[in-house]
Amino acid sequence: MSTPESVVSTFTGWAATQAGAPLEQFEYDPGPLGTEEVEVAIEYCGICHSDQSMIDNEWKNARYPFIPGHEVVGTVVRLGEQAQGLKIGQRVGIGWLKGSCMHCNSCMEGSHQLCNMIKPTIVGSHGGFANRMRAHWAWTLPIPDSLDPSLAGPLFCGGSTVFAPLLELNVKPTDRVGVVGIGGLGHLALRFLNAWGCEVTAFTSSLNKQEEAKRLGAHNVVASTDSAAMKKVAGTLDFLLITASADLDWNALIGTLGGKGKLHFVGIVPSAIPVHVFNLIPRQRSISGSPVGSPAIMRSMLEFCARHQILPQVEHFPMSKVNDAIQHLRDGKARYRVVLDASQ
Amino acid sequence: MSTPESVVSTFTGWAATQAGAPLEQFEYDPGPLGTEEVEVAIEYCGICHSDQSMIDNEWKNARYPFIPGHEVVGTVVRLGEQAQGLKIGQRVGIGWLKGSCMHCNSCMEGSHQLCNMIKPTIVGSHGGFANRMRAHWAWTLPIPDSLDPSLAGPLFCGGSTVFAPLLELNVKPTDRVGVVGIGGLGHLALRFLNAWGCEVTAFTSSLNKQEEAKRLGAHNVVASTDSAAMKKVAGTLDFLLITASADLDWNALIGTLGGKGKLHFVGIVPSAIPVHVFNLIPRQRSISGSPVGSPAIMRSMLEFCARHQILPQVEHFPMSKVNDAIQHLRDGKARYRVVLDASQ
Repeated sequence: MSTPESVVSTFTGWAATQAGAPLEQFEYDPGPLGTEEVEVAIEYCGICHSDQSMIDNEWKNARYPFIPGHEVVGTVVRLGEQAQGLKIGQRVGIGWLKGSCMHCNSCMEGSHQLCNMIKPTIVGSHGGFANRMRAHWAWTLPIPDSLDPSLAGPLFCGGSTVFAPLLELNVKPTDRVGVVGIGGLGHLALRFLNAWGCEVTAFTSSLNKQEEAKRLGAHNVVASTDSAAMKKVAGTLDFLLITASADLDWNALIGTLGGKGKLHFVGIVPSAIPVHVFNLIPRQRSISGSPVGSPAIMRSMLEFCARHQILPQVEHFPMSKVNDAIQHLRDGKARYRVVLDASQ
Repeated sequence: MSTPESVVSTFTGWAATQAGAPLEQFEYDPGPLGTEEVEVAIEYCGICHSDQSMIDNEWKNARYPFIPGHEVVGTVVRLGEQAQGLKIGQRVGIGWLKGSCMHCNSCMEGSHQLCNMIKPTIVGSHGGFANRMRAHWAWTLPIPDSLDPSLAGPLFCGGSTVFAPLLELNVKPTDRVGVVGIGGLGHLALRFLNAWGCEVTAFTSSLNKQEEAKRLGAHNVVASTDSAAMKKVAGTLDFLLITASADLDWNALIGTLGGKGKLHFVGIVPSAIPVHVFNLIPRQRSISGSPVGSPAIMRSMLEFCARHQILPQVEHFPMSKVNDAIQHLRDGKARYRVVLDASQ
């Protein structure tokens, strides 16, 4: 479905043209709309740490030029003929993935995020620091009316990344859980886990974030650099979510887990983690990781967010000031997520 | 319950007196029978790799002299006043653990193996290379009549160690599973997983074990040292059980796991395993470990073994030749488990 006035021949945005360089204005011809695609007029787009990693080609898979941005909020302006479950004018969000094959075992089991043919939004493709974007209908999620769209963007990558393991690893409201790292992902994890009903402990290297962490939902705050404090919580946790992207004292962190405790990574930690089986076998612990959530998990997350009014804490920048916004992030100043406003 | 003739004032057996030395004949006074204890007249006792590790003080927790042996089969000769669910004359088995507190959260949840007060059979205590032994009633498991008692011993440590994760990690009959290492533990894992209904792949560095592995229940055998063969199975497994006690190519082994795949350790691997989050996050994999099973899991295992007639492949030695038997194990010649006969 397209109305004549909804069809534009070029999309405009801000592209990375080489590793580490400031973004530049850029336009491209999106070609014909795919039958299962949705075209979205972008209103807001969050900036995620992985936008920065892709701009800098940290993971060696960037193909320049590309438009970053994968925490997209906007309204549906065009629908391919086979696009399911969406309406023109509906407010939607798109995250790290904008497509999957829909018929492999992973997709058919509802684990579309594990499809071998996943299409990351900004790898070999253009993202949301732009006026328009397209995605597969399954990965274009309606946003409940009660969620402020100017704040919702970061739910689609950061939010889904920390929400998915709560369902996938069967975290229970009776569990004692921990969150390592109070940043873009961690602050949402604290809000989710508090509403999940758990006893929540925040681990941070910056004790000046102590009050902040409590305001965000932590019942306890532990300085991860304080070995006495770490010893005190040894063997107590059922689930520990690592949202930090740094090399930490993994032995001490694994040591916080009790019987059947799970250490779970969503942050990209640079070095390999040395895991000794003596740390796993006697207390039956596990170490795991996961990417973003499936579309079904993202739907559950959005419902949960609407019910509990969970949204990220956001700073707004006009999209025209995208390079200032990225610098703000690089300086470690974001509290806790930056959202670009496409209308400015 | 004790009949006068069932009471003996000393137990006799074979003890380790210093690290690595041959076992020597030894006797001790067991003291009064605890109210929750069961006394067993030993008929058979398996030799486990961890007996050897304890004899050699590999884990630095041996207290000499001690009688090794923790795959015990015998008959109940005395019951403490509060001992539950057992009868004099009943045939029973005892494994790596002979007691737990029975009232902590782990015990009350049925995960007695994770109790902080577990009593390992041969750590600070005397085991089953003897004529008698005592254990808590909960850890003294009745052996179904249809299981040959001369073969059942190894089920109580090796068997329970590889059986427990099938339940604890929710392995499904539709799963594609792998077993690394075809020895005392691995050969039982192949038998269990075949009867569990899974597609079973054995990984071995000795391809002369290929036919053997198939006879034991493997549908496929892969040489873990053959990188082309390893590549062929990359991304295919749901569950991979590590029964080997050696440092292996962990990257290649983790690479065999598909989406949500689980690598699980029951073997004590000497060095830390370097785990990179890039190996976990995109395919949502986990790495875990577990000790022996709980009493409830051991009961399930024994029922399962009786239904499917699963027993270890055993070589018998007279208990009086225990040092020859240990040497046979040290030489890597055991196919696949050694059982001592206490009557000889």
